[in-house]
Amino acid sequence: MARYQAPLREINFVLNDILDAGRLTRLPGFSEATPDVLSGLVEEAARLLEEQLAPLSAKSDAGCTFQDGEVIVPEGFKPFYKLYRESGWVGLAQKTEYGGQGLPYTLGKVVEEMVSSANVAFTLYPALTASCFEAIEANGSEEQKKIYLPRLATGEWTGTMCMTEPQAGSDIGAVKTRAYPQADGRYRLEGTKIFISSGEHQMADNIVHFVLARLPDSPPGVKGLSTFIVPKFLLSTDGLPGARNTVRCLSIEHKMGLHGSCTCTLTFENAKGWRVGEPNQGIHNMFVMMNMARIMVGVQGLGQCELATQNAIRYAQERRQGKAASGGETLIEHPDVRRMLLTMKAMTEGARVLAYETGLYVDLSRHHPDAAVRQEAQDWVDLNTPLVKAFCTDAAVELAALAIQVYGGHGYIREHGIEQILRDSKILCLYEGTNGIQAMDLVRRKLTQHEGRLPRRFFERVRNEIPDDAPLRFIAQPLLKAVEDLEATTLWMQDALRTRSEDAAFGGADFLRAFALTYLGYNWLRMSRAALRHADAGFAKSKRVTAEFFVQRLLPQVHALCGTVRNPTQSLMSLSAANF
Amino acid sequence: MARYQAPLREINFVLNDILDAGRLTRLPGFSEATPDVLSGLVEEAARLLEEQLAPLSAKSDAGCTFQDGEVIVPEGFKPFYKLYRESGWVGLAQKTEYGGQGLPYTLGKVVEEMVSSANVAFTLYPALTASCFEAIEANGSEEQKKIYLPRLATGEWTGTMCMTEPQAGSDIGAVKTRAYPQADGRYRLEGTKIFISSGEHQMADNIVHFVLARLPDSPPGVKGLSTFIVPKFLLSTDGLPGARNTVRCLSIEHKMGLHGSCTCTLTFENAKGWRVGEPNQGIHNMFVMMNMARIMVGVQGLGQCELATQNAIRYAQERRQGKAASGGETLIEHPDVRRMLLTMKAMTEGARVLAYETGLYVDLSRHHPDAAVRQEAQDWVDLNTPLVKAFCTDAAVELAALAIQVYGGHGYIREHGIEQILRDSKILCLYEGTNGIQAMDLVRRKLTQHEGRLPRRFFERVRNEIPDDAPLRFIAQPLLKAVEDLEATTLWMQDALRTRSEDAAFGGADFLRAFALTYLGYNWLRMSRAALRHADAGFAKSKRVTAEFFVQRLLPQVHALCGTVRNPTQSLMSLSAANF
Repeated sequence: MARYQAPLREINFVLNDILDAGRLTRLPGFSEATPDVLSGLVEEAARLLEEQLAPLSAKSDAGCTFQDGEVIVPEGFKPFYKLYRESGWVGLAQKTEYGGQGLPYTLGKVVEEMVSSANVAFTLYPALTASCFEAIEANGSEEQKKIYLPRLATGEWTGTMCMTEPQAGSDIGAVKTRAYPQADGRYRLEGTKIFISSGEHQMADNIVHFVLARLPDSPPGVKGLSTFIVPKFLLSTDGLPGARNTVRCLSIEHKMGLHGSCTCTLTFENAKGWRVGEPNQGIHNMFVMMNMARIMVGVQGLGQCELATQNAIRYAQERRQGKAASGGETLIEHPDVRRMLLTMKAMTEGARVLAYETGLYVDLSRHHPDAAVRQEAQDWVDLNTPLVKAFCTDAAVELAALAIQVYGGHGYIREHGIEQILRDSKILCLYEGTNGIQAMDLVRRKLTQHEGRLPRRFFERVRNEIPDDAPLRFIAQPLLKAVEDLEATTLWMQDALRTRSEDAAFGGADFLRAFALTYLGYNWLRMSRAALRHADAGFAKSKRVTAEFFVQRLLPQVHALCGTVRNPTQSLMSLSAANF
Repeated sequence: MARYQAPLREINFVLNDILDAGRLTRLPGFSEATPDVLSGLVEEAARLLEEQLAPLSAKSDAGCTFQDGEVIVPEGFKPFYKLYRESGWVGLAQKTEYGGQGLPYTLGKVVEEMVSSANVAFTLYPALTASCFEAIEANGSEEQKKIYLPRLATGEWTGTMCMTEPQAGSDIGAVKTRAYPQADGRYRLEGTKIFISSGEHQMADNIVHFVLARLPDSPPGVKGLSTFIVPKFLLSTDGLPGARNTVRCLSIEHKMGLHGSCTCTLTFENAKGWRVGEPNQGIHNMFVMMNMARIMVGVQGLGQCELATQNAIRYAQERRQGKAASGGETLIEHPDVRRMLLTMKAMTEGARVLAYETGLYVDLSRHHPDAAVRQEAQDWVDLNTPLVKAFCTDAAVELAALAIQVYGGHGYIREHGIEQILRDSKILCLYEGTNGIQAMDLVRRKLTQHEGRLPRRFFERVRNEIPDDAPLRFIAQPLLKAVEDLEATTLWMQDALRTRSEDAAFGGADFLRAFALTYLGYNWLRMSRAALRHADAGFAKSKRVTAEFFVQRLLPQVHALCGTVRNPTQSLMSLSAANF
């Protein structure tokens, strides 16, 4: 089984030395969220997750079972979930007025990374609950908020997001589930949803389904969707779960991995629901929550990157195999193994800065007293969301595959738990919008909104921070070149969008990767600078060598990718589907 | 479940239009192996595999079971193996004097590709049997050949290769299994072997273990290893399987995939064995067989590439999801989906030429009457072996991951059989020498043997074939640039090997990929040329667009990779293991 030790030193380095998370205390309501307090909470979560959750990994991989309409979660999940929610971790970043802990969203992301390393399948239960909370908080009536938010903030009830249907995946406008208005103001829901995470289980007293459905008189496509609350148990007059509603789990999926998370097919047959928000505003109502969910999935990817990386390093440090030129006899003495480990470190540590910084911008966008600061922070959140989601999840699969290579044949054997990382991670590239959808979001939306202000902010910021001083020249010059190439490619993209939209779409995935790698270059610049003044010489050396590795081997990909984007295959769309 | 339809048109195009496989008929013994005969045999195999083997895929994934020392293979394997061997496919390319079919090795590789697409786990049973045949044929006594080869050629008995031990994986010199000489000329074997494919099953009347072990007075390391035959059943005086030998299966591994192939831990306790070849020549005795096995694994990778590619294309042609800019409503109309499908086509079709050409060189190296031609062919086999093994298997994992993306969330669900391709493929990057070991073989051995003659042959050949004519200029010029860059990097590598061996080792994996991609460029040049005169306009167009795609998106990676190789991170080895 893979082992997990929370990377506390790395986490604190990013929060304090790179991102100055201490500035959170200057936001209204966060005066007590000092670096010391955050660090203490991270340590407390780390202990809980290392000791109680990580050991459930193999049982989690054995999966959920489905019996007579009920889902039985893996052994150990129910007591751990109880412990986790009673310790207040579910509503960590939710408002205190609804029973949350009122702590920064940034801290929530740090804990989420650790949960995802310890057991990414478990993450889904609290994560979907948070998504459901956010959707109701943003769009619900006062009464709905009063009923549901406190139960979701404490995790007493869990939540789901019911969007996908057999014919409606990436094309969400194809949703067919119907909601018929009833005389009493409620709705009768009819339809089938698939791929519903946490759709049925016994860990909570109730499950709150947040459902995308279509009113009888609605226009076709995405403009005719509305949102509804459909609880598993209808509430009695005293607000407690009472009679069973007619939403039922038909089956659970047998998947590549993530077995501890049940993935349900739900049918709604004469199910009672309550509309949330205005009719036909469903997509709008989902918008904030969906973007938050994308950041969450990116953080899950980060957690899996960390798990793959730390296990591969430990194994390479311990496993004796062959004598290297250096005379050493452990795997880590072999140059090709170092190449793999440094790739893993460079990507994981770079991705952590990207993910946490995005979290910090969410806090600033929500809480900063100055509207201009809030707006700028929101721009960064918008730009970073597809980067975090797609890059961190692609990285998770890539690094999991590298970890298997480091383990050799043993990596392919289930008992080591390394191949599980790859199986668990691959879903992250698919759900909450495939990574292809993320690329489209970056190119079509984020490059164009506010007349291209989002990427301009990025280029300006990075240029301004590129220093002149000798000790950082090894990264400053290559980073500047990458920024210049990416900026030229961004202009090319913005132009292509207007005149040759298929060329733009064709280059989207490569463009996203080029953007993310440039962002990581900026992160490695900041980490290299901070390392210069770090007290621990070994830590500083590790950061320096990893930064050099990043500059030498990963950053140059930006130029190859940009070149590809700007030089599309002209004949691409001319090949008929039948001739593939 | 993934579907499989043998790509007969592609196979015949490569054999006839690109590689002129008709020249096989001019080799002694192959006069009847005309293109028509080969094509007929390929079709016959295709029908058998499509109809009888491919449908076993899901049952194969359910795995083998281990009970009371016996392994039970998946339902359907035993009757199919009987049918397969009785139809003569096991010994297809083995000599007729030993009961084989005496057909070209090239044809054997084509059939192996198809078997690997239809069910890669099944492939191991006949493939290890072929390896065992080759090892005994190359090193056995006349008596050993007479006893074992006819039974292995017909597949009546199957074979294994017993090399790996818990402490001896990539470092084969660490093997500890002992062979004690007995008064009667036999040996008593004592030890434990792990990861033994086909180590125990009931599909054949006997299992011939080919075992690497150490004589009592042997020197340490690889120079003290010898090889032994240890049959599962000792032979009675009439040559039939008699008493059970004391080699036993202790357990089978639970793996990421390849579940239909049993992976056994075998113990040898007072087991009776017969030495093959001279004492302490074990590594030498394994050499030919190991190289053949590496080509075989590369072909398994090709088979999985094909399976991923054809399923993704079919799904994208059929699945309606979202309206594309073109107005089309199937997945294949979306530019980002085309990007993925063309990546898959460009790699699979390019890899097929590499793999088959290597097979053809094996035939030439064995059978051509002219010693100079045989030598040149052997050079190509030596050069190509690590390329085929590492590139085709890395590609299999990469394309399997892309196929999952094309399927979206459905790709993650087991019933579609797409995630199985990734799980089944990942082992290919590990066994028969990890892909890191292949890179070392290419760099340390293949670049230096015969004073660098191997890569020189490649550069000369490709330069000579780069044409001047306008219709191929789109690929000729970029290919020439790639060749120049790769050649310069080869010289850099050869120099680094002498003076900075860790730099050379560090760049090995990237260098191998750059080499393979340049080779694929040469393949796409040849396919583009052949397509110009192809009768089917749709097929010709598909080849042309895919070649353009390859030139635009994959070939440029050569320059990025070469740049990386020639600019190693200097401080890499200075980071202490503890500071990772």
